[in-house]
Amino acid sequence: MSRIMEEVLSANNRYVEAFGEKGTLALPPKRQFAILTCMDARIDPAKMAGLSEGDAHVIRNAGGRASDDAIRSLVISYKLLGTKEWFVVHHSDCGMLLFDDEVMRGLLSKSLETAKITPRGWEDVGKGPGSDEGRYINFLSFHHLEDSVTEDVRRIRRHPLVPGRIPIYGFTYDVKTGKLVEVAEAMKAGKAV
Amino acid sequence: MSRIMEEVLSANNRYVEAFGEKGTLALPPKRQFAILTCMDARIDPAKMAGLSEGDAHVIRNAGGRASDDAIRSLVISYKLLGTKEWFVVHHSDCGMLLFDDEVMRGLLSKSLETAKITPRGWEDVGKGPGSDEGRYINFLSFHHLEDSVTEDVRRIRRHPLVPGRIPIYGFTYDVKTGKLVEVAEAMKAGKAV
Repeated sequence: MSRIMEEVLSANNRYVEAFGEKGTLALPPKRQFAILTCMDARIDPAKMAGLSEGDAHVIRNAGGRASDDAIRSLVISYKLLGTKEWFVVHHSDCGMLLFDDEVMRGLLSKSLETAKITPRGWEDVGKGPGSDEGRYINFLSFHHLEDSVTEDVRRIRRHPLVPGRIPIYGFTYDVKTGKLVEVAEAMKAGKAV
Repeated sequence: MSRIMEEVLSANNRYVEAFGEKGTLALPPKRQFAILTCMDARIDPAKMAGLSEGDAHVIRNAGGRASDDAIRSLVISYKLLGTKEWFVVHHSDCGMLLFDDEVMRGLLSKSLETAKITPRGWEDVGKGPGSDEGRYINFLSFHHLEDSVTEDVRRIRRHPLVPGRIPIYGFTYDVKTGKLVEVAEAMKAGKAV
């Protein structure tokens, strides 16, 4: 067993011991909202937004992007489980600001080891073989934080399976301060209609 | 401003006030692992697995499925940000066990309001119009908890962009007790090769 798995299971044991009443929580989110945000390790959505277990759906991927899969999740979230408001949260210093598809595909074609970022950009210090499969993935990186929030709010707003009654809020999160700030353009794009 | 947004922002203010040293955390996950799990409101991955801010990537979608988008996120996670072990965690009483594509597409075609589950199955009590766009989505529901974990571990293991050196662990999470339990079949499927 790896050290990480030991640590995870031992932390889990402590959580189980103090689990208490949480075992009786119902499936639908009690506070009837959902948050879509980045997988970034520095983000703890429960702490950032004041969630207790049972409160809200949390969807996370690289960038917090409104991918088809995020939309699949949001549709299940409102249609079967009754969420009524959605937050899209991207953040400062996001890894998605540091590359684009061409760079990523190039790195993957050289090796499947972890690349290093240098002042000259990403460098693949690993050995091959790599894989050209990166060509078939849109990595959904972005170049402007607020714009990516607005784009994603707009994409969700326009999806034919998303009801107009659901407001979609767009926020940035500052990893230096922990602060959520609403994006003005996204506010217009995400209004209930 | 909605009540939910007020509550979220006020919780966020309290988080910001006590943010302290967290503002200096680096982008790559310090403990070099990632967890893929469900968006379910009852799951708090940080508490379930003992994560502090900065420790690990957390990817979440409806079901915790190994969707193309989850794989996109995992590839970014190891290739650019250095994670070395991955956990796939599905859970008991998951909403994904309660429907299939045919049911979901039928409900969406009738209305975009929230459906109700009854002893006779899902009932759409809302008014139309609905949308046939559900036909274009694979909702990735499943019928057997352990099997879905194993399938997803296997799908990730076989992906051409996933290096054989990364072990992929498959777990179930019990929402009644908080307990993580490793899935034996997934253990074989996810071994480093």
